[in-house]
Amino acid sequence: MPPVPLSALKAPPSPRETMQRERDQSRGTFDLERMCYAMGDGEYNVKLKRRFMFELERDPLFKLSDIHDLTKDEIRERTMAKFASMAHYVTNESIPIFQQRMNLISTADPAFWTRFGVHYGLALGAVRSGGTSNQVSYWISKGMLGLQGMVGCFAMTEIKGGSNVAGLETTATFDDKTDEFIIHTPSVGATKWWIGGAAHSATHAVVFAQLIIKDMVYGVKNFMVPLRNPKTYQLLPGITIGDIGKKMGRDGIDNGWIQFTNVRIPRAYMLMKHTQVTRNGEVREPPLAQLTYGALLQGRTAMVADAASTAKKALTIAIRYAAVRRAFKVGDNEVETQLLDYPIHQRRLLPLLAQAVAMGFTSFRMSALFEHMTEQLESLDASSDAQETAEVLEKLKETHATSAGLKAFCTWNALETIEKCRASLGGHGYSAYSNLPSMYNDQAVQCTWEGDNTILTLQSGRSLVSSYGDALKGTKLPGGTSYLNGLPSILTTSCPSNSATLELDTLQAGWDCVSANVVKQAYEKFDEALKSGKAKGREEALEACSQERFVAAKVHTAGYLFRMFREALVELAKDEPADNGVIPTLESICRLYGCWAIEENAQHFLKYRFFSPAQMDIITAEVTRLCAELRKCAVLLTDSFDMSDHIINSPLGCYDGDIYERYFARVKEANPHQPVAPYFERVIRPLIEREPLSIDDADDIEIDDEIAEIEEERREDEEEKKGAETKEKAAKELEKPADE
Amino acid sequence: MPPVPLSALKAPPSPRETMQRERDQSRGTFDLERMCYAMGDGEYNVKLKRRFMFELERDPLFKLSDIHDLTKDEIRERTMAKFASMAHYVTNESIPIFQQRMNLISTADPAFWTRFGVHYGLALGAVRSGGTSNQVSYWISKGMLGLQGMVGCFAMTEIKGGSNVAGLETTATFDDKTDEFIIHTPSVGATKWWIGGAAHSATHAVVFAQLIIKDMVYGVKNFMVPLRNPKTYQLLPGITIGDIGKKMGRDGIDNGWIQFTNVRIPRAYMLMKHTQVTRNGEVREPPLAQLTYGALLQGRTAMVADAASTAKKALTIAIRYAAVRRAFKVGDNEVETQLLDYPIHQRRLLPLLAQAVAMGFTSFRMSALFEHMTEQLESLDASSDAQETAEVLEKLKETHATSAGLKAFCTWNALETIEKCRASLGGHGYSAYSNLPSMYNDQAVQCTWEGDNTILTLQSGRSLVSSYGDALKGTKLPGGTSYLNGLPSILTTSCPSNSATLELDTLQAGWDCVSANVVKQAYEKFDEALKSGKAKGREEALEACSQERFVAAKVHTAGYLFRMFREALVELAKDEPADNGVIPTLESICRLYGCWAIEENAQHFLKYRFFSPAQMDIITAEVTRLCAELRKCAVLLTDSFDMSDHIINSPLGCYDGDIYERYFARVKEANPHQPVAPYFERVIRPLIEREPLSIDDADDIEIDDEIAEIEEERREDEEEKKGAETKEKAAKELEKPADE
Repeated sequence: MPPVPLSALKAPPSPRETMQRERDQSRGTFDLERMCYAMGDGEYNVKLKRRFMFELERDPLFKLSDIHDLTKDEIRERTMAKFASMAHYVTNESIPIFQQRMNLISTADPAFWTRFGVHYGLALGAVRSGGTSNQVSYWISKGMLGLQGMVGCFAMTEIKGGSNVAGLETTATFDDKTDEFIIHTPSVGATKWWIGGAAHSATHAVVFAQLIIKDMVYGVKNFMVPLRNPKTYQLLPGITIGDIGKKMGRDGIDNGWIQFTNVRIPRAYMLMKHTQVTRNGEVREPPLAQLTYGALLQGRTAMVADAASTAKKALTIAIRYAAVRRAFKVGDNEVETQLLDYPIHQRRLLPLLAQAVAMGFTSFRMSALFEHMTEQLESLDASSDAQETAEVLEKLKETHATSAGLKAFCTWNALETIEKCRASLGGHGYSAYSNLPSMYNDQAVQCTWEGDNTILTLQSGRSLVSSYGDALKGTKLPGGTSYLNGLPSILTTSCPSNSATLELDTLQAGWDCVSANVVKQAYEKFDEALKSGKAKGREEALEACSQERFVAAKVHTAGYLFRMFREALVELAKDEPADNGVIPTLESICRLYGCWAIEENAQHFLKYRFFSPAQMDIITAEVTRLCAELRKCAVLLTDSFDMSDHIINSPLGCYDGDIYERYFARVKEANPHQPVAPYFERVIRPLIEREPLSIDDADDIEIDDEIAEIEEERREDEEEKKGAETKEKAAKELEKPADE
Repeated sequence: MPPVPLSALKAPPSPRETMQRERDQSRGTFDLERMCYAMGDGEYNVKLKRRFMFELERDPLFKLSDIHDLTKDEIRERTMAKFASMAHYVTNESIPIFQQRMNLISTADPAFWTRFGVHYGLALGAVRSGGTSNQVSYWISKGMLGLQGMVGCFAMTEIKGGSNVAGLETTATFDDKTDEFIIHTPSVGATKWWIGGAAHSATHAVVFAQLIIKDMVYGVKNFMVPLRNPKTYQLLPGITIGDIGKKMGRDGIDNGWIQFTNVRIPRAYMLMKHTQVTRNGEVREPPLAQLTYGALLQGRTAMVADAASTAKKALTIAIRYAAVRRAFKVGDNEVETQLLDYPIHQRRLLPLLAQAVAMGFTSFRMSALFEHMTEQLESLDASSDAQETAEVLEKLKETHATSAGLKAFCTWNALETIEKCRASLGGHGYSAYSNLPSMYNDQAVQCTWEGDNTILTLQSGRSLVSSYGDALKGTKLPGGTSYLNGLPSILTTSCPSNSATLELDTLQAGWDCVSANVVKQAYEKFDEALKSGKAKGREEALEACSQERFVAAKVHTAGYLFRMFREALVELAKDEPADNGVIPTLESICRLYGCWAIEENAQHFLKYRFFSPAQMDIITAEVTRLCAELRKCAVLLTDSFDMSDHIINSPLGCYDGDIYERYFARVKEANPHQPVAPYFERVIRPLIEREPLSIDDADDIEIDDEIAEIEEERREDEEEKKGAETKEKAAKELEKPADE
């Protein structure tokens, strides 16, 4: 290209100015404060969240800017310090308020939240749900709530097994002479593994072990087992504990392994709300095992909510960065173009924003539903009549299946969103200080614990298959699977006309039709395997259709998110002023989610002929159009997610857009200047100042010979080997750029 | 469930026994040694690789088992020590042999390989490709090859820009009085960023800067700039350098930032093979800028090869783990079922294995093609005639476009494969000692450097669009896009019959048809934007079809991998004995890749009606069937990838299958026993022994008031807020399991 005069080069507006323009241009698209309330489940919750963000930002324990450079020991020490500081709030704040505090912390500081959740959620939770009322008050009196003299952990998983709880191998053998249980780890495979808090900080463990009485095995029960002297933290006799060490993420939590060697505990340390063991070793089983599902459902809703917040956090960083980052000039731009102005970049981020918003609204609606479920479950007891029980359990089945699919796909969605946001920052997404790498590493485990996502997906698919069978028998299905009540006509519906393609009702009808068809596909594969005798029994038949079950759960869940989003919009529209832009903007987001998710699942919409190829092109064009429309208010939408710079903890996603100065400052702060490398004298000087090895060095001669042989072999090979390396080529190869 | 007698419980075979059975059962499926040669690009390369693995395993510098617990400084020091040890080989081994050594190391030890590649590939490579022959010998005489007195780095990227090289802001202003260039960093945004080796270990940098002479800007050129005194490593005047600090991965390399403040270098330090600046400041431009593409192509092929090896490494871990890991009992199994026996688990791993093999064969064929290209390019010079030049450049266009798509999708495929393998290990995939987390973190950057994958994909799509235009004009297209020579009939071909669905020729025809259609879609969107005037000029028209270009490149590349795999099979079949099972097994793998990739892109095969919905079901059934077939020899296939336990560096993927003992031993070795936490006295004891805060503590009263207010707000909200939290619900919420 021809040279240009220096004077002709035009500087773009500063990142700060660019960000200001973004907000100025979009102001008026919607009422930001009202949008915050909509996105944050109402004014009350938003204000509470803001109060907590304000408190966290001032709390020196919750400094986040330096976490990427802390050692494992340092981050664990800080985690325990935060843990201690929470004892004040948990004992002084009302439970719903404290819960809100923890929900915010789970987005801001996942590793700490985990350490806390292990004690309060898992250990105390297990005592509450598994202990008799006497046992609950006993352990609370021992300091389990106030963290005085007692810190708990939850010892379920073993090195050889986690998902299959029934297969755990740790034993709890009743000794009726001494009225004690003997807790024992029979093999390395039975070593308790991943136990959060065990490595350093827990005094007691809730242990899952096989109950054995008089050589009979009664299955896995829970036992409270003291691990350490609460004064000295010395391990108690028969307890062997080690540190699990470095993990992909969440290093703030001291995961450990535990081996028990004939450890004796009093009979009363078995949690006996359900199964009970009497003094003389009789076992009384619970009337309704299902009762324990309650907490599970709540846990899953919480994870959907967390997935939504985490995705919003990542998108806040990526969208703000894309608003101020410039690269290349397009058309007659005088200055480089903002990334956010590139259609492909809008395509990379805005559908994910729509999905995050859909997950958020879904979590709000699900928590109400699950709360209702849980209350009904609580109200059940041995005295409840069969009819009542049956109804609750029927509803439980659907809720349970839906929640399994939601947990799986929402945690996967959040993980994928973080990765795509990270990659959208280009090289800077590879810097720890962008915060996206550690967000990814922290999120990854959400897809495994609380039920491995693939297993949960298949559970959801299993339940869809049986719901389909029920629907064929004419059972009226509740909630999320009610579209199956439209069988068989629902299977053959299709988009009425090209002009109707984009109506929300059409999209909904499409999801119902396609969901019904993929569930049918799984059911028929199952049924065929069963009837043909290819499969021995239901279990094998279910295995035969596992791929189809997976697809069914995937499509069902995507459609479910769309339906929840729409229902939430209807609710919101009731109180929301028509003229403040909130509802219209959310409708565009809802339509974007619906169309994009259809595009992602296009094969099914085409295969079952709900949409024609031409109509699929209309959907694709609409996704592109909506991305361009929402791009205009994209920064304002990140503002409506209402996350402080402190919580986001990424200079590349800062509110004011001054990304390069803040990023540069963060890097310098975290990496103080060193005149020379700490290893200069040890490694660099000897290299740089060494004498060249002379060619008649004996070692060299030997190596040369070796090479000669192999070179020989190579020459022999060459006739038959087309395209074998030549020195010329290899010289080029050696020049292959590996980049910085 | 009813209790069972202890005696009735049956123990499964040990992991070691299970692994042995796997090999016993599959022995005879194919000749393992011959399969190794096929997978490893021939006997010669496989034997060389084995020799290097053997050497690495014994070299204490290449200990890998402890890398996960090293600090950033420790891993950097070790990296430099390895770097120094390579000086011997690079100066004594023939280049092709040394190159093979580095290819293995790039799979075994990516962070070290990067440090090495930055000096030899980028810095020395830039001198070789950008310097005159005098300049090349000058810098080699200064010790650039032997690492005596000189270590190089490559200073291209700036904090504000990487992809758009033309937009870089560092200046090189010619001072004709002193015959020097003044290298200067005008702003924070122009700070050189991510520069590998700059933080601590480089003495010189090849700097990309805007050439400015007499207030005219001549674009970005390369300049050799001394950074440090090679004796003391003190920074030279005007050089400011800092450490970029913590990254997502590859922490072994000391990436740094550099600011130049009026740094003067002799005119001769500008690399002048292409653009030349005379003593009096005249500029002579090169005849053919394209010449510099050569190394780029080689770099991309190398990355495809590395993506294949990295994916094979991850799959070796995941498949061996799945072979010995057991969970749940299916059907009438007496013991828990191996994960690898679950159809869904086969579906998770075996298609990725087929894809990795496809990428491997593709890289072998591409390197031959690129070598040929490069030689032709080398042979061009100012004296070449226009006709000859035009032909080479035409071929270059196609090769360049194809290589861009391959680099993007193969590095993405490898990243996704690592993540899916990691997740398939369940919780253990979250342990650093599984090695998969750091493999993921190391691989991620491959998708960004050497050209951001999204940008490369669009480049590939751009070239496909113009190829389509050429094809319409009747130009005969070479190589990868030759299917476009079949226009227009190719667009409307379809699978002749259900029975023909699975023939390799049918799959090939399908890829050709669908590739042509998606390219057509992009071309027409482009053409429409241009003709309708919606877009001002080609650039804007290309932006208007960027999503379609992305899809076109995606489908084109998947089809290209399938074609390369098939062509490689034909070649192999020539020398391979018919009866040793190698070719039939590879054909099954090739068919699996073809069918699975079709399933992944099903929407296009349905949309363009190459396959009917019924035929898509045949494809899906075949994927499931092939997964079950290849499951039988899955472990043997990992053996054919021929990677030592040392290279794999994951006790969970060890050859002998004794995963739990080795994993437990690794964790204990890496985390020596500590009686109490190092932070026990500082943090834990004060918590556990503290006095409870009494309720009349002033602080508490104040906080109680605050809470009272908010509780008040809440009560007011409740009428209008449906499903607001009740204590009962919140109590449940608090019990939400956070898991270990």
